[in-house]
This record gives sequence, structure tokens and C-alpha cells, in this order.
Amino acid sequence: MTKVAILGGSGYTAVELIKILLRHPAVEIVAVTSRSEETPLVAELHPSLTGRLDLRCQVFQPDRLVARGVECVFSCLPHGASMEAIPGLLERGLRVIDLSADYRLRDPNVYGQWYGESHRDLAHLAQAVYGLPELYGDELPTAQLVANPGCYPQAPILGLAPLVTGRHIDLKSIIIDSKSGVSGAGRTPKLDFHFPECNESVCAYGVGKHRHTPEIEQALTDLAGEPVEVLFTPHLIPMNRGIFSTIYVTPRRAFTDAQLLELYRAYFTQAAFVRVLDRLPATKDCLGTNFLDLTVRCVRGRILVLVCEDNLIRGASGLAVQNFNRMYGHDEKTALL
Amino acid sequence: MTKVAILGGSGYTAVELIKILLRHPAVEIVAVTSRSEETPLVAELHPSLTGRLDLRCQVFQPDRLVARGVECVFSCLPHGASMEAIPGLLERGLRVIDLSADYRLRDPNVYGQWYGESHRDLAHLAQAVYGLPELYGDELPTAQLVANPGCYPQAPILGLAPLVTGRHIDLKSIIIDSKSGVSGAGRTPKLDFHFPECNESVCAYGVGKHRHTPEIEQALTDLAGEPVEVLFTPHLIPMNRGIFSTIYVTPRRAFTDAQLLELYRAYFTQAAFVRVLDRLPATKDCLGTNFLDLTVRCVRGRILVLVCEDNLIRGASGLAVQNFNRMYGHDEKTALL
Amino acid sequence: MTKVAILGGSGYTAVELIKILLRHPAVEIVAVTSRSEETPLVAELHPSLTGRLDLRCQVFQPDRLVARGVECVFSCLPHGASMEAIPGLLERGLRVIDLSADYRLRDPNVYGQWYGESHRDLAHLAQAVYGLPELYGDELPTAQLVANPGCYPQAPILGLAPLVTGRHIDLKSIIIDSKSGVSGAGRTPKLDFHFPECNESVCAYGVGKHRHTPEIEQALTDLAGEPVEVLFTPHLIPMNRGIFSTIYVTPRRAFTDAQLLELYRAYFTQAAFVRVLDRLPATKDCLGTNFLDLTVRCVRGRILVLVCEDNLIRGASGLAVQNFNRMYGHDEKTALL
Amino acid sequence: MTKVAILGGSGYTAVELIKILLRHPAVEIVAVTSRSEETPLVAELHPSLTGRLDLRCQVFQPDRLVARGVECVFSCLPHGASMEAIPGLLERGLRVIDLSADYRLRDPNVYGQWYGESHRDLAHLAQAVYGLPELYGDELPTAQLVANPGCYPQAPILGLAPLVTGRHIDLKSIIIDSKSGVSGAGRTPKLDFHFPECNESVCAYGVGKHRHTPEIEQALTDLAGEPVEVLFTPHLIPMNRGIFSTIYVTPRRAFTDAQLLELYRAYFTQAAFVRVLDRLPATKDCLGTNFLDLTVRCVRGRILVLVCEDNLIRGASGLAVQNFNRMYGHDEKTALL
Repeated sequence: MTKVAILGGSGYTAVELIKILLRHPAVEIVAVTSRSEETPLVAELHPSLTGRLDLRCQVFQPDRLVARGVECVFSCLPHGASMEAIPGLLERGLRVIDLSADYRLRDPNVYGQWYGESHRDLAHLAQAVYGLPELYGDELPTAQLVANPGCYPQAPILGLAPLVTGRHIDLKSIIIDSKSGVSGAGRTPKLDFHFPECNESVCAYGVGKHRHTPEIEQALTDLAGEPVEVLFTPHLIPMNRGIFSTIYVTPRRAFTDAQLLELYRAYFTQAAFVRVLDRLPATKDCLGTNFLDLTVRCVRGRILVLVCEDNLIRGASGLAVQNFNRMYGHDEKTALL
Repeated sequence: MTKVAILGGSGYTAVELIKILLRHPAVEIVAVTSRSEETPLVAELHPSLTGRLDLRCQVFQPDRLVARGVECVFSCLPHGASMEAIPGLLERGLRVIDLSADYRLRDPNVYGQWYGESHRDLAHLAQAVYGLPELYGDELPTAQLVANPGCYPQAPILGLAPLVTGRHIDLKSIIIDSKSGVSGAGRTPKLDFHFPECNESVCAYGVGKHRHTPEIEQALTDLAGEPVEVLFTPHLIPMNRGIFSTIYVTPRRAFTDAQLLELYRAYFTQAAFVRVLDRLPATKDCLGTNFLDLTVRCVRGRILVLVCEDNLIRGASGLAVQNFNRMYGHDEKTALL
Repeated sequence: MTKVAILGGSGYTAVELIKILLRHPAVEIVAVTSRSEETPLVAELHPSLTGRLDLRCQVFQPDRLVARGVECVFSCLPHGASMEAIPGLLERGLRVIDLSADYRLRDPNVYGQWYGESHRDLAHLAQAVYGLPELYGDELPTAQLVANPGCYPQAPILGLAPLVTGRHIDLKSIIIDSKSGVSGAGRTPKLDFHFPECNESVCAYGVGKHRHTPEIEQALTDLAGEPVEVLFTPHLIPMNRGIFSTIYVTPRRAFTDAQLLELYRAYFTQAAFVRVLDRLPATKDCLGTNFLDLTVRCVRGRILVLVCEDNLIRGASGLAVQNFNRMYGHDEKTALL
Repeated sequence: MTKVAILGGSGYTAVELIKILLRHPAVEIVAVTSRSEETPLVAELHPSLTGRLDLRCQVFQPDRLVARGVECVFSCLPHGASMEAIPGLLERGLRVIDLSADYRLRDPNVYGQWYGESHRDLAHLAQAVYGLPELYGDELPTAQLVANPGCYPQAPILGLAPLVTGRHIDLKSIIIDSKSGVSGAGRTPKLDFHFPECNESVCAYGVGKHRHTPEIEQALTDLAGEPVEVLFTPHLIPMNRGIFSTIYVTPRRAFTDAQLLELYRAYFTQAAFVRVLDRLPATKDCLGTNFLDLTVRCVRGRILVLVCEDNLIRGASGLAVQNFNRMYGHDEKTALL
């Protein structure tokens, strides 16, 4: 039984994480922290947990977590706050899965450029493993610090991995058009996410500026062995959860749909949570699950990759548990089906 | 051509009011005020007005409105703020239609009890006309100050008027169960109205405490000639607009559905915006309109009145223009079809 | 390991049932039937099951189920079809949990009156147990045929049980105003449930005629020991799942909120899936769970009981598994948390 | 006063058309046809019209329309049915605005290829004017037959017109990713548009096969003076109305955002219903209007054009009235603001 703590317990990723971990036979949640001075019951922050978790939020104190026997910490803090909290945990020997952006970008200059502040924990940044198990899974068993990917990047990274790895596409041609439910924007009320403002409407946002862009590029560059730039446009959709990513690339040679599907099936044969589909996917079919559903099509000389995920599970908390399972030698699917 | 001003231009009732008034052949909007220090274009606050209204918001100054030739002012300010602004307008001879709650309750003690603050403009409160034209329409042509009803009260007031007027029901039996879209909560972001919190969920709120209760009771008391108390429960529904009110009362004698429909049709024969339906109503059918749709049924010894309205039009801005039309001698339907 | 079959596999209750049973450590799904002539993969009917259940739908043949070793059958067939299929299963010694209405009403005349057809399996009707474990749980371990309750009735039955059992209310005063998501209407496309017809709208339906009325009355009559009639009005809400029931009754004596909450907490102390809350409930907090969340309030001389549930889990498939767990001696919560 | 008839009165475009025409000071609706044998009141098909239009649907008979004095007919029939009905009207001298696809594609072979049936009215096809007034407006005053554009094509056609006309882009680079509300799929119930199937989900459909593709290509080819092919991917979004189109093209030379906005503003200076915005558009801001809202951005070497419209108004019925206004010499905006 591994004792775990969750930092930043008030948001959507935290509550999903708690629900998954409550199902995990080898995990005990012993602490949940929140930044507020008060120490409410976790179930007061998240009424859906009523009767399920009898813990009171506590202020973050590394020594207190050690004293409680915590071995692994999930950080649901926002970026910036995460890299303040995590060094003290690592120094005390704890393992950390960070759901924020703080340890995802290996180059601190890129971090500074996109996040508008300098990175303040270069030492640990260098040792962080990017927690996308389908690509970096071998590093997880020994990792002390895992940077859980953002919700958007997984779809284009995994969705293009077979094509980029096989050098089948023009690397300058990548366009990613993503449609996300509103929970991806977090739980802090703002006019843009006020119900009557986003219900019955669609809009693009962060055009050319979304912070998940360099994360996509870093992983695709790893796969390609040469620099990759992408054009990424996120859109806000009137639904709670789910991301649909439509990816457009130019192939270097002609493919049939069948060839592409075969290529993808071969590539993902070991990936328990990637479902390569014949039919067109819909986000509802992976809602509440850790599955990444995708298909691929040739249309008018281009390849389209269509990828669906639940942004809070596969895009955050479910993937964090998948990483945890790999780190601790559990079956990758434990608590996730 | 009547020159009008709108106070408190940043909310949902203001933008709906502006759209209706832009269609009104006898109205010119010459000023929109907002409480912020900045003076943005109205179309910056409400992008849907782009290209339609070339006005910049101004700070509220009564003399400036008079200088601009304003004759009639619509106040979309919140309660409390309205009774600060309105006295100065009335003293300068302007007519005012107030969409807030400040002048709706004739008894200032009731106001104090439900709104938690003393009324600060007793002089004008005494002369205010409750702007429900189907009941108080005769007072509108000469009114200087009209208190536009709240969004919820109209449905039970008009929905019960034929029964209460005819003394057909037990006045102690009235239960009103209302279901409202989220725009009724206004445009200020709060966690309760954050998209992922209210989408895909229903809840009751303000149980036993909603401030529209005394407004319903005041009008029904007028109709009954004796004190009426009601049990009113509002619910929040995941849609932008619309209120569906299900009203339960105990009749004093047996009715058939046909008798009830006939009674209602006779009562509302002159009411241009009340549609008495054979079928069960749905809010979508009066969405964006000034119609109040209703039907009535006998079930197991009780009478059910089912009433639909658009909370922003019939429940606020459309009704304000209907009141304006009556005040200024225009056809009641002008700009409202 | 109990081998189970699911009849009528194409609808929403079937897919939810399958997902729960896939998590059940003591259950193996060995057959899913559908009425169509084709025998598609279950995952073709329900793409969310891709990679999770490798079964092909089969035509219903009792002997084939027996040959496969099936011990327990869940029927998700519509009413009418269920009482055609079930006798043959019972005669072969299988146990059956029927999610249709066919075996819920003990009096076949009441069935005939509300469902418009005669009951065709009176023999087994007489032995069916109404599968509401909080009330009839003692009969479940020995039951061969369990009639799983409708989605609406549980809320008023359990929501009023403490008051009716304690003889605290006027039994003629019961009004139930329920608000349901659209999945409750099933998966067959009809204009009323076409997306643009029910999105952004609320309506009442089945006023005075909804078939769950006699089911509510039967259970409350059991509790009261005398005939109970209720006024039940369902409404359709633009969301996928969830039922919010607002129940109005007249108490025989005065209560405080605290007294009521204490009464309810005492009554439900053994009920693993009933959560008595201080706060007002919202359907989102029990979404996807088997919990029934409720609170109770005194307002203006009446008692309000506010009850939330997920119509497909607590209102159908989750409750069916709760019944299964009781029938087979498993912990009641198995596969349900 | 022009007497008009509407063919195919049961769908969403028909009811929107009726509502707009009821506001038109120079139009009288004298007939609405439907294909059913019954002759219901139009307000029975569309309850929102209760009290607004006292017409009974009639079976389509050209001579009966002539006898009623009809001068102009709007056809809301589906494709295939429209080209059956329209020849008889044209031969009787009536003018026709066809909202179906039947007369949009000048080349009948292209029609046959995309619609799977031969065109059956080649004579009139040759004389039809494509009713996009911003491009083909000069032909409208004398047109007898106007083919109203599809809902999707207008956004890419007008959104790319300034770039294509100015030869600023690589014509082989055009990718159009569109997101549409569900009303675009019509009013016939199908599983794909059943509320619980499309609420809380996003999917792509018709990938590489959507019938609006050749319509986009025809108009862009006109503008370019050489053949243009596009890659068009529509998506279904859980909302009633609105289309958001994200268009990606490769420019032939570098542009700043300011240069692009200036180019677009100059191009659309005479277009009353095209709003070129500095900010990113959202579909809610043109909901229920005839406006096409757009902006344009340079990102990582590509140009993005972001276009919003209401699919039923600008995408169908509003545009039909704009065409009517041009055909009959009215101010283009009549009844549309």
C-alpha cells in the first residue's frame, strides 16, 4: 500500500484523481493540501466526494507529509506554484507526479518564453521524465519526478508518432485544430467561462500563443530527430469534458486508409489505452476513461488524424495514475478501467 | 422620436433592451452608462452590437442626460444602486422604467426584510407603478416611475390571476416550482454559474428565501383582496434562457380542463402577449420573444398551471419596452414581434 | 464467478450495466442479446465498449443461455417484451433482474390501466420482489425474480419513507415535481428528443399520466398501511443524465430543519447509497454514481424533500447491480464505488 | 406588397424564414406547403408561431399559388424535391429562391458525382444565380431563379475572397475546419442527432465527402480564375446553432495582422452583413443575425481566417431574404436587423 498526497486539492484534476485513487487497491490517500488558510473537508470542496473521503484539507508542509508516511505526491498546483513546492519533496526523497507545466519543457528558455517567468528549479528540471508512457515509459520505473503532459499535447504527439517516426510526412506541414470542453480551463470563475457566455457558442482562443505548443514540438522533435514546428489552434466547445483534435499533415508519399490504419495498429500494439478505430471517433465514447481514441484518413492528398480524449482523465488525472502504475510496477491499467 | 438612456449597460438585460430599442421606430438611444471609470464602446462590452450602436459608455450624470434631450431612462442597475440614481432623474422630470427590485414592493418594511437594507427613497416608492401591463396597465400612461417586475413573478401572478380573481382556489395552497436558465443569475462570474459547475446539472436554490416571493404575494394579494402567501422554489437549469413555472393549487370546486382553458382565454382576451395553449408549453417556443405561454390542467383534484417565458425578454427587457409603449401611447407590440 | 446475460443490449441501461459488471470481480458477462436479426459486436452498438468486451450480440434463446452456464439474467428489454422473455428463464431455474416495468406493479389491473395492455405472466408477477433494497432488501437473497424500480419512483419513495413511516404528513398532500435528463427517454430517436428540440428548452410531459405514478403509490401505500395517492409531474431538462425531484408535503406537526435531518439520518443509517445532506443537492454530485443524495427543509408550513440521482445508474443499472449483490451475498457496494 | 409562398414548411429553415418575413414591411406570406397529406396549421408544426401566422399548410400545386397571387417562392424542400417543384413555378413566371442544393452547382456532372443522382432540370440550372450577394449581387435584380448557398460554404468563400482575389495565397494549401451546431442537420430525428448522443460530445463527420465541398470550390475557382481544390472537414458541436470555421492557408508573401485586417476591411467596405473584427469572433455574437463575423491572423507562416455565422439565418433564411431584398430593390437590410 503506497501512501500518497495530493497538492492543490480544489480543482477539477484533483477531484478526478481522488476518485481514481479511491479505486486503486494499492494506494491510500493520506493528505490533500489546499492553499487556503481554512482547512475544509475535501468533501466540502467537492460535494461528490461526500461519504467517500474523510479527510480535511491541510496547508502544505513537506515534513508533515513525510511524517504521515507519504511516499508519492501528485501535484495539482498551477504552474509556478508547483516548482515552489516540489523541490522540498524531492529533497526529502519523495517521488512526485506533477500535473502542472513546470517540468514538462526541458529547455528553461522555452519555458521562460512561453510562460513569461524564469524557471526556478533548474536542478530538478534536468531530471524530470515527461510522463507520456507510450513514448517515455521505460524511464518511469526509476523516475523520481514525472512531468504529466498537458491535456492538448498527447493527441498530436501520439496521433503523429507513427507518421513522424516513420518519416512519412512533411514536418513543416503540421496543423492541429483542437476542440475542448470547458473544464480544461479550470475551476476559477471568469467571464469567458460563465455559463451563458460559453453555452451555445464556439470560439477559438490563444491563437498562435497557446502554451501547449512547445510541449507538442518538444516531443515531436524527439521523435523526428530534427526540429519540428506546429500550428496549433485550440477552440472552446460548450461541453464539460473531452478534446477532439483534427490534425492535418502532408504525406511524403501516397497512402491508402487501410495502409495507414495498419501502420497505426502496429505502432500501438502494446499501448493499452490507445484505441485505433476504423470508424470516426466521438469524444463521448472515451468520456470518463483513460482511452485515447483515434483514426486516420487520406483526403485530397493530405492525411487527417482524428483523436479523442477525456481532458480530465486521459488528459490529466488518469494519465497520472497510469504513470504511477508504471513507476510502482503495477499493471498499467489498475484503477483505470 | 423619444430619446432614451440606459443605466447599467454591461449586463444581459441591457444588451437585450438595446437590441429591442434599435428596432423601435419611435426611440433613439442617446446614452448608455456604466459604473466603470473607463468609457468603452458599448459594442466592446457586448460584441454582438458591433456595427449596430456607435455609442461610448459614459459615467452616470443626470444633468448630462437632460442636456442630451433624454426623456425616458431605463435603469438596468442592480437593486440598491437603482434607488441611488433614480431620484435625481425623477426630480429633473424624466420618466423612468426601473428593471431592478427597488420600487417593486410597496411596503418598505417588506423590502427591508427581504433585501437586508432599508429603502432609501420612500417618496418615489409611493408613486411607483408595478409594470405588469396586463394587471396595472391603466396606470402606465401617466406613470413617471415604473417598476418592471422580476423575471419569476410574472408567471405565477398572471398564471393564477384568473383563478384568484374568480376566487376559485384555496389561497393557502399555492406552490410554485420554477426552472430557470442561467442568464437569470446575471453576468457576474461566480463558481455556481461557472460552465462546468452548472452544465449537466440541476439544483434548487434560495429555497424559502428567494426575493421574488414577496413580489408574487403582493400582486396576488391585490387580486385576492386578502393576504396571500406562496411557497416558491426556483431551480437552476443548464440552458441560457427561459423559465418554466409549474404551479400547483387546490381548487374550491371541480373543473374540467376545457372549463379552465375557457376561463383563461376569456381572462386574457385583451392580452397581446399571453398565449393560452391547448398543448403543454415548452420554453423554446417563446425563446427570444415577449410572449408568456401557458396552459392549465386538472390532475387528481388539483389544478396545474404551466407557464413559459423568456427570462430576459418577457422577464425583463421586452416587458420594459411593452411598458414604455403603454406609457408613450404606442401600439403595445411595437418593436416586440 | 457468476455467469450473467443481458437481454436487450442496445439501449442506455444496457451499456451502463455492462460497464459496471466489467468491474465486478465475481461476474462474467457471457451473453448479450438484441432483437435485431443481425449479430453485431456489442462494441459496434456501443463504441465506448471498444476493446473492453469481445462479445457478439445474439438472438434471445433461453436454452442457449443455459448451455452457456448463465445463472442470472438482467433484462433491459422494454415493458411488454420483458414478460414474454422472462417466464422461460424462470422455468429453467435462472434468476432474473428485470429493468422493465413488467413486474413492478403487484396488481395486474393497475398494470393494465396504466400500460394499456393486460399482464401476460400473472404467475411470476405474484412472486416478484420490488428491487428497492432500502425497503425490500430482506427479500432479495431468496428472490428468483426482481423487478428493478423505475428511475423516477425511488426519489419520492425513499425521500418520503421517513415521513410516511412515522406518520408525520398528510398523505393527501404529496406533490412530486421531477426534472430529468433526456437519457431517461431511451435511445430511440424521436422528434421530442432530437437535439435542437430539447436543447435550450424545458417542458413538462405526461402530466397526470406518467406510468411511474402507480409505482410510487404502491410503495408509499406499503409504508403507510393505507392507500396513498400522489400528484407527479415530470419535466424534461436539457442534460444527458440526472433526476432532481422536488417533493412538497404538508406535515401534521411543526418540524425544524434540524429535526427533519436527524429523522432522515436515523432512518437511513444503514443505507450505503443514500446520502442525507445539510446542503442543497445538485445532480452533478451523484452523476455516474449509485448514490441518492437528498436533503429536507421546512418552508412556510410545508416540508420540502429535495432528491438527486443519476437516472441510468441509481435509477436503473447501478441499482440492478446493488440488487444482484444482495441476491448473491456480495457486499452491497461491490463494483459500485 | 409582394405575395410569397414557402415550400417545405416543416423544417428549421422554413420557420426562421417565416419569422423574418413576418417582420418584412413589403412581404405577405400567403401560402406554406408541406408534403404531408394532412393540412395542419403552420403553428402546429412550429408552436413558436402560435398567434403569429394564421395559415394552414397546403399541398404543393403551382396553379393554386398563381391563383393566390404569389410572385416569389422560397423553396425549403430537400435537394431532389426542389428540382421537381421549381420548373413548374418558373414556367408560370414566378421568381424562386431555392434553399436546397439543386441549383448551386453549375456543372451537372459535379452535382451527379456528389449527390448521387442525375440533375433533372438542366434548362433552369443554366440560368440560376448563386445567391451570395457579396459576390454575385449584380445578377440578383434580374434573376428569376436564385440558388441560396449552403450553410458551410459562405464562410470559406467570403473568408478567402480577399486573399484569393488578390492572389495572395497558395491555392493548393486551403484547409477548412468547420464546427457546426446540430440544427444544421435538419429536423428529422436520427440516432446521430438524438440528444444524449450529441450532447457532451464532438465528432467529425463526412470527412472528405461533405457535399458542400464542390460549392466552395466553384466559387473560389470563380474568384481565382483557375481550378481550386479545398480540404473541408465539418464537425458536430453540442449547440443548436452557429458555425465556426477555422481556415488555414499558406500565403505567398509575409503579412502582418494589421495588413491583413486592412485588406479585409477594404474588400468588405460595401458588405452590410460582413463584420471584420480585431478580436477573435465567437458564434454567440452573431447568433440569430444575418452577420458574418470574421478576423484574420498570421501565425507561424500561415494565415488563419476565423469566421462565424448563424447557420439558419446567415447560413440559410436570412441570406434568402437578403437575396430577396436585392431581387426586389429593397434596402438589403430590410427585416434583417
